[in-house]
Amino acid sequence: MELEKFLSIIEEDLEAIEDTIKLNLKNDIKLITTIGSHILDSGGKRLRPALLLLTSKLLNNLHKDRLAIATAIEFIHTATLLHDDVVDNSELRRGQSSANSIWGNEASVLVGDFLFAKAFTLMVDCNNPDILTIMSNATKELAEGEIYELIKTGDLQTAKEEYFKIIEKKTAVLFAAACEVSAVLANTNKEQRNSLRQFGLNIGKSFQLVDDALDYVSTDEKFGKKIGIDIEEGKVTYPFIFSLEKATEAEYEKIKELFYKETPSKEDILFIKNFVIDKGGTEATIQEAKKFSEKATEKLEIFPDNEAKNILIKLSKFIVNRRF
Amino acid sequence: MELEKFLSIIEEDLEAIEDTIKLNLKNDIKLITTIGSHILDSGGKRLRPALLLLTSKLLNNLHKDRLAIATAIEFIHTATLLHDDVVDNSELRRGQSSANSIWGNEASVLVGDFLFAKAFTLMVDCNNPDILTIMSNATKELAEGEIYELIKTGDLQTAKEEYFKIIEKKTAVLFAAACEVSAVLANTNKEQRNSLRQFGLNIGKSFQLVDDALDYVSTDEKFGKKIGIDIEEGKVTYPFIFSLEKATEAEYEKIKELFYKETPSKEDILFIKNFVIDKGGTEATIQEAKKFSEKATEKLEIFPDNEAKNILIKLSKFIVNRRF
Repeated sequence: MELEKFLSIIEEDLEAIEDTIKLNLKNDIKLITTIGSHILDSGGKRLRPALLLLTSKLLNNLHKDRLAIATAIEFIHTATLLHDDVVDNSELRRGQSSANSIWGNEASVLVGDFLFAKAFTLMVDCNNPDILTIMSNATKELAEGEIYELIKTGDLQTAKEEYFKIIEKKTAVLFAAACEVSAVLANTNKEQRNSLRQFGLNIGKSFQLVDDALDYVSTDEKFGKKIGIDIEEGKVTYPFIFSLEKATEAEYEKIKELFYKETPSKEDILFIKNFVIDKGGTEATIQEAKKFSEKATEKLEIFPDNEAKNILIKLSKFIVNRRF
Repeated sequence: MELEKFLSIIEEDLEAIEDTIKLNLKNDIKLITTIGSHILDSGGKRLRPALLLLTSKLLNNLHKDRLAIATAIEFIHTATLLHDDVVDNSELRRGQSSANSIWGNEASVLVGDFLFAKAFTLMVDCNNPDILTIMSNATKELAEGEIYELIKTGDLQTAKEEYFKIIEKKTAVLFAAACEVSAVLANTNKEQRNSLRQFGLNIGKSFQLVDDALDYVSTDEKFGKKIGIDIEEGKVTYPFIFSLEKATEAEYEKIKELFYKETPSKEDILFIKNFVIDKGGTEATIQEAKKFSEKATEKLEIFPDNEAKNILIKLSKFIVNRRF
């Protein structure tokens, strides 16, 4: 089932988000609008805003501030993409030239900063202390996650628990924030608020696990990145960690030698990639993602059945089964 | 008169700020503490926190949140320094190796992001909507100023009004925020709040003008940067704009030729530098700074005389007369 199809119940809201994004990218300084639009119009799935909007629907609460906060969350996410591409020296983002490859690292860093700041103003305008606390903590953890990932880059001995700490902070926390914000806007009880947060955390981990699996095997052009870049960049993610655990001593030594080469060749990268696939690393990652998606779904049990709940359950499955 | 001497009336507060900075740099991820401390312990003058603390003293208001907000402002300032050094490819910052030259651009970008986010959490914890509005707008304008500066880099035709727009946004707005926050914490009337904001704006412009003059003429090692870097980086600041206005047509053509060379030699840079000094550009810049400092001082007239007011007036003069 296509993503767009089951997001149709929040279609109007998603369109309103596009308008809010456009409005907030308007600026006397044209470069802000240009770079901001380039990355925000490049086919992002608006998954974080969608989670906020769907969980709001789940709670039958259409608080007017949901659009501003959803936009702020998308801006924060986009700012990290701009900075990520600088950090990773990426040339592609969602199948297009990355902002840094067109306008340079300088502009990408600064427009990322602008998007952070603009998100900050959007959230402050909503004047809700609980939301500000959720969002400021999420932003801080996001930065910590990015730094932790940078530190562990190039470390073949990255442990599973370190990997999970990284993906929780760099990805899952913002998913969790998007869902928890809905609970705050709807003024739910603590149990519901916590359940929605846990739903977001689990679906966020599932999403990142699948992303890391697709980096090895996606053949879909919609994935929008070159595949195999994690190894090229020295990122040791779940598929790789899993496969290393299954390696014989000789295999481990061989992989180690290739991984730590100063300039590994394309063949070296391909060798590692095939090793990971052959050892079942990507399949195991998808299985792991499935567990988190199921956990996410369980967190919805306390909510009354409605259309939005059905869609959220379908979305949890889609996140595992997607090929892009 | 030494800066330290007349900041002695806020000595205890400034020490408390150092503790608050240290406390908030503590992190399980050691790289955050290391890079954060490297740049925050490198001899910054804590001018923005000092302005917040002095204006609080001026208002006889020692609100407990002044320390958290002052720290947040210093974190925001420091985040922009980390990102600036990446943008400018700087190797030195305050006479020491810059963070990016030691730990790489990646770490500098991400630790800068962390400091922004941490500042955000500190401010949210104070739970004051007016302060959050001031600070979120200041942060947004700061980012706009940095981007506008980037756009105007390498443009010999930068006009004075464009220059003033840049320095207002990239520097003066954060000074203004520091002073306005004191008024909010003290719950002053609108006139006082506005006067303090204007005081900060003017002193901020004065500060940046002097900084741009010192880039041409400082011989003080405390200045902590190589001098002449603005021209090297293609930054057309007040001293240069002033001097170009005084140039004969032949002089202008000569400067233009050197400025737009793909790789200007050291002699070319020196030639432009001496042209600016000979035309009186740096002296005119200091005179311009003096005007803004005087305007700043005028804004203090509505406040009753006290020790803090005297110090703020002295500080306004110091900012013009400093040689580092």
